[in-house]
Amino acid sequence: MISERLKELGITIPVSPAPLAAYVPAVKTGNYVYTSGQLPMKEGKLACTGKVGADVTIEDAKNAAEISGLNCLGAALTAIGSIDEIERIVKLTVFVASADGFTSQPEVANGASELMIKIFGDKGKHSRSAVGVSELPRGAAVEIEMIAELKK
Amino acid sequence: MISERLKELGITIPVSPAPLAAYVPAVKTGNYVYTSGQLPMKEGKLACTGKVGADVTIEDAKNAAEISGLNCLGAALTAIGSIDEIERIVKLTVFVASADGFTSQPEVANGASELMIKIFGDKGKHSRSAVGVSELPRGAAVEIEMIAELKK
Amino acid sequence: MISERLKELGITIPVSPAPLAAYVPAVKTGNYVYTSGQLPMKEGKLACTGKVGADVTIEDAKNAAEISGLNCLGAALTAIGSIDEIERIVKLTVFVASADGFTSQPEVANGASELMIKIFGDKGKHSRSAVGVSELPRGAAVEIEMIAELKK
Repeated sequence: MISERLKELGITIPVSPAPLAAYVPAVKTGNYVYTSGQLPMKEGKLACTGKVGADVTIEDAKNAAEISGLNCLGAALTAIGSIDEIERIVKLTVFVASADGFTSQPEVANGASELMIKIFGDKGKHSRSAVGVSELPRGAAVEIEMIAELKK
Repeated sequence: MISERLKELGITIPVSPAPLAAYVPAVKTGNYVYTSGQLPMKEGKLACTGKVGADVTIEDAKNAAEISGLNCLGAALTAIGSIDEIERIVKLTVFVASADGFTSQPEVANGASELMIKIFGDKGKHSRSAVGVSELPRGAAVEIEMIAELKK
Repeated sequence: MISERLKELGITIPVSPAPLAAYVPAVKTGNYVYTSGQLPMKEGKLACTGKVGADVTIEDAKNAAEISGLNCLGAALTAIGSIDEIERIVKLTVFVASADGFTSQPEVANGASELMIKIFGDKGKHSRSAVGVSELPRGAAVEIEMIAELKK
């Protein structure tokens, strides 16, 4: 049970903020859940802002990616009843706010990818794109969206 | 019926341009439709070009996002018979051509998101990512792609 | 048979590098395969680096997109048994590392799109987004991800 594994790991999935007016944190469709892009919000605040490679170190950005990844799970929980309903992680798309010349987006994205492996084991191994973008909402350093398959 | 709701709202879904050589405006697969990225084309012309936060105001960009969102529905119609076949909007990905330091991509994206709610009600509530990119095709200010679930 | 068509075309799908620690080249889920973002790697080396419109010509970038597209098929093959299992190409997302003012991302993306038509015919016609981003992993000029539907 993933819920038990989370306890062992000492990981608490954050409660996703209340749905906004025009979109929702996640949508369940068929046996999939699609999350909205998640920023590295922690306790109501952005944990990491700025451009990676200039204002933000790879290590801090990797940590921010882990927070965003955890928020993806929190977002998924707004559309499903329990984390145990997740069969596997299908896809992560990782947008990294990148300073000119910064090309280590994969190292940053590993923060979220490694979290999924830690929690879900082989079922956490996902396809992934990591790209460097010029600006993210509210100046966040990282934004991540997730597709997960649900148990039937 | 969504088609009747569109009449009440006075909204006409634009006819999507003829399919290009190498790709198509939308693909139907299973009970889903995936659209190609839609620019804010209106009557054959790009309605909004430039970088948001410099050349383009948030208000104009939000309006461009609404046009792109409407074009997503037009693109979907090339792959399905009627707008009434849409069960719900699953996902919007909103790329905003952003000037340096512009971080209000969500406000821009709301132009498309609010349109979906207006047309589809609760079934229009979708997951969404909004990111700032450096350049979009033909200098467009916004590009939006959509995934929608179809009725079975 | 697509495998026979590849022989006629003289196209060899490259073997995807061994799965990395934290994610995989592709995931099969239901009757779909999702690939990770593919760089224009050829024989273990990046075939094209730099910003399109400055360091890289459209023609070279289009060629790089073709290589990335071929690598998407190679990535898919890590999750399925044969290229003949592919029913159709559903979606390509094409990220182009773009110099300031470069807005011909669609011309670049055609390198991958035309490859899919050449190999799969009408079943190769896909939905597509092409966007310009500031930086890609390792300085690659292009990164492409693919969703394909599998035969049931």
